[in-house]
Amino acid sequence: MSLLIVGSIAFDTIETPYERRERIVGGSGTYCALAASFFTRPMLSGVVGEDFPREIIAFFQNRGIQTEGVLIRPGKTFFWEGKYGYDPNQRETLRTELNVMAEFIPSLPESYQQATIVYLATIDPDWHEAILNQVKRPKIVAMDTIQFWVTHKTESLWQSLKKVNIFFANDEEIRLLTREVNLVRAGKKVLEAGPSLVIVKKGEHGALVFGRDFIFGTLAHPCEEVVDPTGAGDSFAGGFLGYFDRAKKISPRTIKKAVVAGSAVASFVIEDFGIDRLRRLTPEEIRQRMRFFHHLVSF
Amino acid sequence: MSLLIVGSIAFDTIETPYERRERIVGGSGTYCALAASFFTRPMLSGVVGEDFPREIIAFFQNRGIQTEGVLIRPGKTFFWEGKYGYDPNQRETLRTELNVMAEFIPSLPESYQQATIVYLATIDPDWHEAILNQVKRPKIVAMDTIQFWVTHKTESLWQSLKKVNIFFANDEEIRLLTREVNLVRAGKKVLEAGPSLVIVKKGEHGALVFGRDFIFGTLAHPCEEVVDPTGAGDSFAGGFLGYFDRAKKISPRTIKKAVVAGSAVASFVIEDFGIDRLRRLTPEEIRQRMRFFHHLVSF
Repeated sequence: MSLLIVGSIAFDTIETPYERRERIVGGSGTYCALAASFFTRPMLSGVVGEDFPREIIAFFQNRGIQTEGVLIRPGKTFFWEGKYGYDPNQRETLRTELNVMAEFIPSLPESYQQATIVYLATIDPDWHEAILNQVKRPKIVAMDTIQFWVTHKTESLWQSLKKVNIFFANDEEIRLLTREVNLVRAGKKVLEAGPSLVIVKKGEHGALVFGRDFIFGTLAHPCEEVVDPTGAGDSFAGGFLGYFDRAKKISPRTIKKAVVAGSAVASFVIEDFGIDRLRRLTPEEIRQRMRFFHHLVSF
Repeated sequence: MSLLIVGSIAFDTIETPYERRERIVGGSGTYCALAASFFTRPMLSGVVGEDFPREIIAFFQNRGIQTEGVLIRPGKTFFWEGKYGYDPNQRETLRTELNVMAEFIPSLPESYQQATIVYLATIDPDWHEAILNQVKRPKIVAMDTIQFWVTHKTESLWQSLKKVNIFFANDEEIRLLTREVNLVRAGKKVLEAGPSLVIVKKGEHGALVFGRDFIFGTLAHPCEEVVDPTGAGDSFAGGFLGYFDRAKKISPRTIKKAVVAGSAVASFVIEDFGIDRLRRLTPEEIRQRMRFFHHLVSF
């Protein structure tokens, strides 16, 4: 199989109760591709401005990420500023500047059009069709979303879901989307709309996975100090899809292992600011943490 | 071993967004003893008024609960009224009438004084010493608490913790008690104060268990319809302690299995009002749900 990730590549300014970092590298596509790169060689599609460091694109390539579809356009890179409270689940967006992302509907390079797994990372649901139409024979279409699209493009989002096999959302987003407080009912409601797999990310409480005929759950890594929660969800999806891509087959067992792989990678990301922890992460650390997850829940 | 449960036996009036039930049987001691009775023959210590139905005490006895220490006093039974929102974790106490509980510091019957496991269920921390002094050679002392004691008797509670081996709390209570948002740090802080086991109940998100040299987690049963969440925490503790009492040995493995037993019983309690589900619950259903928990998290 082969994995295509379409998402944002960004500069983030992040403030936590303990520290502030200005204009560090972030973006849903960035986190997702880096996480996936521990398992496979993902294709990344996105756009940056002329201010984006070439060094980072070289780093992507060194990690085995295909960057032919990372376009460099005149102007400034997408910028996001956010602030976290003492509870890392509390996050406030202070500023969003779309910049070169404003008018960007990606035109996929020839090689990307052969992808068998396509992941649409938190991008405008109105763009989904234009992107998917460029992929010749996708086997699996996965998507994530954000509260902004749930609120402002609800109808588009439900339309997109019809064409999607795997839907990632956090607990707040899926509750908002389905108007169901109960996550089991919310998960089932989305299953009925199209996807055969719904993955609900619950931050420090782990994740719940709803399939047509199975349910699976995982806990989060019990972390004493969340340095920066940014990118945890995107890394979860990246780890999941990377593992899934490498496994080359779809079964409940593969899905469960992929969920744990995603949880493992995400659990590292929050240990440092931005992509810093991913830069020094090793495959052996991921394997160790996957074993830890096994011990954490076995009885 | 032998398990003594000291707690409230009550009438509850419960309102959910869907239904209201007036003066049904409840109380921390009631739920805990009933849950434990699926595994062992617990001794229940508590007080009721003359208005309490003898039929219920006979039912306790039929379930193998020892009731010599259930006193019947002139006056009215402890009464609690609460209201739940659409999110079952949102609960508001509308009324509490201590009635016969107001001046009750239990005097334990001779047989109860031989207990090896003592559980102090959500009772005033100022009473703990007077109760524990009556038990000859307790091997394990366990306690639960409620937000009211955390707020109003903080110092007493920390004092009590010094004499406690197992501490049960929900996430909100332990955060309030330790002033730590992070549950792992909160758990460790309590471990430092005395207990060798801290069990943090997280409602729909399961439970985290902190030991001196291990950590264990369990998910909650994915329930589509929470009818009445009252008593879930007490039943969790009862199932845990009952299983633990029957297992007759203390090891991480026993503790983990006991946590799953507690989660299993609690997951049934919320399926109906008050103790209704416990009245028709069977040991085979509990075993089945424990197997389900195994499948839920295995990968």
